[in-house]
Amino acid sequence: MNFSIIRYILGWILKIEGAFMLLPCLTALIYKEKQGFIYLAVAAVCVLLGQLMSFRKPQSNVFYLKEGCVATSLSWIFMSIFGCLPFVFTGEIPSFTDALFETISGFTTTGASILSEVEYLSHCSTLWRCFTHWIGGMGVLVFLLAIIPMSGGSHINLMRAESPGPSVGKIVPKIKYTARILYLIYIALTLLQFVLLLFGKMPVFEALNTAFATAGTGGFGIKNDSFTSFSPYLQWVTAIFMLLFGINFNVYYLILLGKFKKALFNEEVRWFFIMVIAAIGIITINIYETSGSFFKALTDATFQVSSLVSSTGFASANFDAWPAICRTVLVLIMFVGACAGSTGGGLKVSRFIIAAKSVLKECYSYIHPKSIRKIHLDGKEVGDETVRSVAVYVLTFLLIYALSMIAISFDGQSFTTNFTAIIACINNIGPGLDAVGPTCNFGFFSNFSKYVLMFDMIAGRLELFPLLILFHPGTWEGVFRKKVK
Amino acid sequence: MNFSIIRYILGWILKIEGAFMLLPCLTALIYKEKQGFIYLAVAAVCVLLGQLMSFRKPQSNVFYLKEGCVATSLSWIFMSIFGCLPFVFTGEIPSFTDALFETISGFTTTGASILSEVEYLSHCSTLWRCFTHWIGGMGVLVFLLAIIPMSGGSHINLMRAESPGPSVGKIVPKIKYTARILYLIYIALTLLQFVLLLFGKMPVFEALNTAFATAGTGGFGIKNDSFTSFSPYLQWVTAIFMLLFGINFNVYYLILLGKFKKALFNEEVRWFFIMVIAAIGIITINIYETSGSFFKALTDATFQVSSLVSSTGFASANFDAWPAICRTVLVLIMFVGACAGSTGGGLKVSRFIIAAKSVLKECYSYIHPKSIRKIHLDGKEVGDETVRSVAVYVLTFLLIYALSMIAISFDGQSFTTNFTAIIACINNIGPGLDAVGPTCNFGFFSNFSKYVLMFDMIAGRLELFPLLILFHPGTWEGVFRKKVK
Repeated sequence: MNFSIIRYILGWILKIEGAFMLLPCLTALIYKEKQGFIYLAVAAVCVLLGQLMSFRKPQSNVFYLKEGCVATSLSWIFMSIFGCLPFVFTGEIPSFTDALFETISGFTTTGASILSEVEYLSHCSTLWRCFTHWIGGMGVLVFLLAIIPMSGGSHINLMRAESPGPSVGKIVPKIKYTARILYLIYIALTLLQFVLLLFGKMPVFEALNTAFATAGTGGFGIKNDSFTSFSPYLQWVTAIFMLLFGINFNVYYLILLGKFKKALFNEEVRWFFIMVIAAIGIITINIYETSGSFFKALTDATFQVSSLVSSTGFASANFDAWPAICRTVLVLIMFVGACAGSTGGGLKVSRFIIAAKSVLKECYSYIHPKSIRKIHLDGKEVGDETVRSVAVYVLTFLLIYALSMIAISFDGQSFTTNFTAIIACINNIGPGLDAVGPTCNFGFFSNFSKYVLMFDMIAGRLELFPLLILFHPGTWEGVFRKKVK
Repeated sequence: MNFSIIRYILGWILKIEGAFMLLPCLTALIYKEKQGFIYLAVAAVCVLLGQLMSFRKPQSNVFYLKEGCVATSLSWIFMSIFGCLPFVFTGEIPSFTDALFETISGFTTTGASILSEVEYLSHCSTLWRCFTHWIGGMGVLVFLLAIIPMSGGSHINLMRAESPGPSVGKIVPKIKYTARILYLIYIALTLLQFVLLLFGKMPVFEALNTAFATAGTGGFGIKNDSFTSFSPYLQWVTAIFMLLFGINFNVYYLILLGKFKKALFNEEVRWFFIMVIAAIGIITINIYETSGSFFKALTDATFQVSSLVSSTGFASANFDAWPAICRTVLVLIMFVGACAGSTGGGLKVSRFIIAAKSVLKECYSYIHPKSIRKIHLDGKEVGDETVRSVAVYVLTFLLIYALSMIAISFDGQSFTTNFTAIIACINNIGPGLDAVGPTCNFGFFSNFSKYVLMFDMIAGRLELFPLLILFHPGTWEGVFRKKVK
């Protein structure tokens, strides 16, 4: 294992985090909040420690998938530990476990909160909380790749470990430019939403936070009631942007290049919208009676579906009180999630397309046992290796799901609570049903359960394996004994 | 498609069903119940119709996996439709849908009932209800293969479609003898349990029904409170037999041959018992306080775990009122189910072993990307094709699960009810949690939901694909237009 490069990357990650923390400092300056000094102090520590770790260049630039995964997982753990310190030191979330939960929930863009009163937070902490979503949405390692000069290494391994979806598509041959293009699209969309929210007469500070939380498909609200009290205009703008951030970013690049046809005929995006429209349809019909007007029902349905399918987790209605069919549909789209290559979470639409096609192929093979049919996606043949990895991914997901269910069941909550708390965390969504419904929070869980859920959030964000291999003894082979060469 | 052989097989199935119906007739004779005439009439119709259908020998004996699947699915549907007629005509279950539900639940060894008062049934109907479990447990086509002379066809395709588990092991090269050996072991074990129950002072009629329902891992009770009022001796005997019927029958054959070592070191059976013991341990500790005594807690835990893991579905305690951790463990073992090649349902332990090994292999491949490691089960290499088919099976299962959840959610029951009703039906278990808990029944579901659940029961019993391909247009290719050759 090439430890020096992992140390080097972790150092850079800390430096970047320190730099990002200047934004809450600036906020504190504007609103004259003394908490700003704590952010400044933590930022300074991050930069100093980071500089110390990245001062010496790595002995070797070469690293493999293993190093990529370890570097990514450790980066996320480091980032979260340092990121939660301001919450602890300002006393706004005094418990370390709670603060860490909130920060991991932020970086992984989950948006599950342990706070019952978010409006009591200082401006700088509110901003930092929403900003973690934005940082985590596109991925801090992707950011790193976009800015620092690293040569010689196969950096696709870093990106592969952090990017969501079954296969990493390099937009352009050079990974550095791919990372830059992704971030530019990300920034542009965030800004656009920010401006549109301002048009809806949302105050600047709220609009900024909302845009951050939407862009990362995070879901931390700035109001205790999340989105319920906002105007329909603001709800529609946010609903549309949640969907936009749930689409594969390659599509935007194709649009930028003028390849509209190729962009529009993307199979994953097409199925994503079919699913969204079907879900909105079913729910609108079923809440129409209680909503009073068709427009209100449609708005509520669209907002909640967009929010859960993109794994954002804002709520403009208490969907836990909706009819059973609506809740079932919502839980199912929570499992599916957004498109690969987006900032959204979930198992990803493309995995379901591949899974569904495998099922059809299997049926077909019963009828014509000797036929050899390949699965196609977007007109391209999907290799057996991809099909296999999708299947293994789903199996791994279910295994972690089952073990997590057992672990948090000791708390004695209802089956629905436990079941939806896990899906809300592992798919980085935020709210679930029952005791973790949209009007509730995760504060009541025991510390043990909170750590289980934190594990699930990071595992879900990094697509399971990068985090899992941290626990595989093979990863640390030869680390504790001297290398014989 | 070779229709003549399908017609021929269906004819035989009806004749066998008619013959089986003589047992309730005999019961009626003993207890002097006039319902016996209805059973006799239906039996006569079955035999006549069956004779009509199987009178002309099939033009060709050759049939493929497609024919095997279609014949199996249609057999089960036919059998259920004719099997439910006595319930309707005796007026004991007047609604056809309900009677069909009860019969399918019987044949598929699910044991989910729509009856709230089973003790009001006549003796002959009680016996027929429990006997359907016994018939369905080992499979009626396996029975057919054991008795009728069919030459030239690849009958393994019939057995493959009806036998549970990822791969069909022929015990002996000739399929006919394999089927006979399986049935002999099945009958011997049933008799043994019957005798042991008699030792526990259970009346003959009750012991017979209980043995039938246990052998098929069915779970229809003869008392309204299932097993609660029986003595600990009877509960332990039944608990142990439920586990025994959940073990791969090949193991018994190995024991008969004196190959004890090979039998004991069967990997699937080993993991099955590890899982059972772990589950019993967790539950015993968690219900110890409320149970009063350690023995009572252990008895209740063992009985319920054996019942649910083997997919039988008897209940000796209201586990829906147990602590959350117990309910979670029970739901998880419901998913896993019994061993392949047993009469039990579920996804099967061997599938989980293969899945877990795939996950470990995937982790390993992140660390050593170039390594080629194979998965082993029982010391034998598991081919990529088996791994793939296991993965596809799980995906198909989840797909059916999701669609069924949507379908039955329109009834407006709680999330837990819907979630566990599906697992209880598709894995052929019987009771679930909440409104389908062990003290409740399935009667409240709408007719639409009942048909969905019936579909799930048959799909689960036949391991999904045989039933699914009935709905695949490719199966009926060339059926409605003239064949061009």
